[in-house]
Amino acid sequence: MRYSNLLLILLLIVCAPSGLNAQRANRPPNIIIIMADDLGYGDLGCYGHPSIRTPNLDRMAAEGLRFTDFYSSAPVCTPSRTGLMTGRLPIRSGMVSDTRRVLFPDSAGGLQQNEITIARALKNKGYASACIGKWHLGHLPQYLPTRHGFDYYFGIPYSNDMDRSPEAPKGRTAIFEPKSDYFKVPLMRNEEVIERPADQTTLTRRYTEEALKFIEKNKGRQFFLYFPHTFPHVPLFASPKFKGTSTRGLYGDTVEELDWSVGQILELLRREKLAENTFVFFTSDNGPWLTQDQHGGSAGLLRDGKGSTWEGGMRVPGIAWWPGKIRAGSVTREIAANLDLLPTCMALTGALLPPEPLLDGVDMTPILFGSGKGKRSAIFYYRDTQLYAVRKGPWKAHFITRPGYLAEDPKHHDPPVLYNLDEDPSERFDVAKQYPEALAGIAKELETHRASMIPGKPQLEDRIKN
Amino acid sequence: MRYSNLLLILLLIVCAPSGLNAQRANRPPNIIIIMADDLGYGDLGCYGHPSIRTPNLDRMAAEGLRFTDFYSSAPVCTPSRTGLMTGRLPIRSGMVSDTRRVLFPDSAGGLQQNEITIARALKNKGYASACIGKWHLGHLPQYLPTRHGFDYYFGIPYSNDMDRSPEAPKGRTAIFEPKSDYFKVPLMRNEEVIERPADQTTLTRRYTEEALKFIEKNKGRQFFLYFPHTFPHVPLFASPKFKGTSTRGLYGDTVEELDWSVGQILELLRREKLAENTFVFFTSDNGPWLTQDQHGGSAGLLRDGKGSTWEGGMRVPGIAWWPGKIRAGSVTREIAANLDLLPTCMALTGALLPPEPLLDGVDMTPILFGSGKGKRSAIFYYRDTQLYAVRKGPWKAHFITRPGYLAEDPKHHDPPVLYNLDEDPSERFDVAKQYPEALAGIAKELETHRASMIPGKPQLEDRIKN
Repeated sequence: MRYSNLLLILLLIVCAPSGLNAQRANRPPNIIIIMADDLGYGDLGCYGHPSIRTPNLDRMAAEGLRFTDFYSSAPVCTPSRTGLMTGRLPIRSGMVSDTRRVLFPDSAGGLQQNEITIARALKNKGYASACIGKWHLGHLPQYLPTRHGFDYYFGIPYSNDMDRSPEAPKGRTAIFEPKSDYFKVPLMRNEEVIERPADQTTLTRRYTEEALKFIEKNKGRQFFLYFPHTFPHVPLFASPKFKGTSTRGLYGDTVEELDWSVGQILELLRREKLAENTFVFFTSDNGPWLTQDQHGGSAGLLRDGKGSTWEGGMRVPGIAWWPGKIRAGSVTREIAANLDLLPTCMALTGALLPPEPLLDGVDMTPILFGSGKGKRSAIFYYRDTQLYAVRKGPWKAHFITRPGYLAEDPKHHDPPVLYNLDEDPSERFDVAKQYPEALAGIAKELETHRASMIPGKPQLEDRIKN
Repeated sequence: MRYSNLLLILLLIVCAPSGLNAQRANRPPNIIIIMADDLGYGDLGCYGHPSIRTPNLDRMAAEGLRFTDFYSSAPVCTPSRTGLMTGRLPIRSGMVSDTRRVLFPDSAGGLQQNEITIARALKNKGYASACIGKWHLGHLPQYLPTRHGFDYYFGIPYSNDMDRSPEAPKGRTAIFEPKSDYFKVPLMRNEEVIERPADQTTLTRRYTEEALKFIEKNKGRQFFLYFPHTFPHVPLFASPKFKGTSTRGLYGDTVEELDWSVGQILELLRREKLAENTFVFFTSDNGPWLTQDQHGGSAGLLRDGKGSTWEGGMRVPGIAWWPGKIRAGSVTREIAANLDLLPTCMALTGALLPPEPLLDGVDMTPILFGSGKGKRSAIFYYRDTQLYAVRKGPWKAHFITRPGYLAEDPKHHDPPVLYNLDEDPSERFDVAKQYPEALAGIAKELETHRASMIPGKPQLEDRIKN
């Protein structure tokens, strides 16, 4: 055979889709949602951080779609995760409270069975599913991932700064010079505690190994992996391989290990030829915990952080990846929220939307595939049970303002304070007087919202009776 | 001829370097330095801005090298440009003053003839050269670009908010609701005023046309283009094509027009097959003018802005581009400064370094080509004639602190305030007590620096006698 003919044949072989790939292309995609804990809007290279190195997440963005205006559904952990898992504002399921902002080890409540999670909705479509990482939607057996549609669970059931040992140093020393022994946090497999206290220095590595194993095991079928990391929530721990390697200190070490983990997942998808049939989304549960000094992250140019309804509390990184389907290197300024992940997963898989319950999420596939405008008309910023602010288009009206974690009373504003977030992303210039029509538009949005709001039975107040 | 043979021949044609390209590859590169005015560290998409769209600069970074720690040589205009043009801290040439921070239309001084600019140094190597844009190193004939080694000059000689007309509205109204007529700024070609007041709405477009023409005209030989834009310095003007098109308001319009301009330059280089023989660098002269409300930019997560020696005043975007020579999509965390552009240009072109004068710049080609560590050991933060702070490695010691443009007296610190900029880029946590050895290292650096410092004859105080 002549060389040039050989070349042609080689070209044909390289370009032709294999039978396996063609078959895969016709079925709904695998879905992976990776979430960081307390990672700020400004903490990744691709969001402008100067000293934290995140080459894998930067590459994910360069190969996918980066959101500039992606929101969590609450400024703290338990309610934000509720919103992601159910597509409904957490107040609807009672996963908010004005006295206890999240679930604690002595909490008796959790996500109720009448709530439909992404895992349960995908179950109907035959997806294998796993939750690997921090759950925080209830640690009593009836609330665990295994009771909410997941085939498999591996991780810690609540935050890694809980269950503090009486022997731990007092005050912030236990946080700033942490040891796993100071926090008697359980590590669980399905419904069993397999280690207590969890060795926190190994969590990111072990979560990642479990995630890779799950993907390998289920590569022949459709799967859903929900992968909520424990870090960079304080106390910060990195494995020996990462500890002391970042120039950003321990915070940077944990974020860079998390970045490594993302790289491992995407690399496996590429290697197993699953990349073109897997939708991966990366985000954070809320903004950076600014009062943790250098152990907290950065919201970049956004105001305030975790706990607050300023942008820094709820606007978070959002990166979507699906080679061949999502245009590489794109950036969207459309508004979206973790509430939208459930309807989006439904749209991608053809699963039916859960019957009856009122959804706050909208399908964001038009944004992902560049096929049209986003369908989201507003963002509702709840702090605990109270609605503090509403965004509609570029306009954000604050009815109440209050710093995330400082002892300061809420300030009520009537008329509200108004910012144009596109012109003024750092929320510095109140323009309420100049734009009464923007306030009127928000008032109308608010009226509709209030009319639809039926708060659920409170879950965060009750404590386990001994 | 068979199709497959044709294919092979086509492949050969596409892959073979043309004679012209091979010839070009052996000669020193063309050099283009593009500078924005008052653009902040956080104002570009690739540095994390959420609502300003800068696809051309983002692409430049994706095809080149982005600096996370690039510095101007001063927090305001005239001295910063002096440092860029001479490779020497502006105090050495008297281009600083404690009473008048920059040159004004009534200033009698300017850059002296004993200073060697990049243009003059490259002149010896036969480069064609042009300065297109805002000069601000002296507007009397003896100080103009044409007297400092440039073959051609087109632009305004100082800032666009100067020469305010007595008919202009008082206070900030003239800035916030600007008209070209309010500012009797001259537009010059070489040493002639060709328009006064300059029609500021057309400046970015006309500068760009001039720059493209210069490149076209000199594409057969080596050229040096210094392209310092007038915007986004206030008063902000955008051409009709860009006005009102950005979601970030007028500030965004001007930055997006500037981004368009960069795109035009790079596109011409690609089209004329000059890209692989042209080194392009983009930066800003200092941080954002924060007291200009929404007409000022953002320093992202950095503290303060223009006028100050906090990071926001002097750390600026820095993007290097040279396809085939600089690795695409790279990011460097090495420290560099606009002072380094002169020695770098000398290294790239084989031009001899200027004889005798003490340089503060260092050759940054090891950073550009990834061939080694940067050679810069420290950053000296002067505000006017006073040394306020010194950075060595990640450590920055402030001897004096003061907000950029607010009426607040300087605070002297003894011992100095110390920050670790890698761990704490926002300069929040003084760690002087914990790291005495870092302070000692800086003290040593300072001693060497002080011993070498001979301030030049002051140029910013004298006024033209009528």
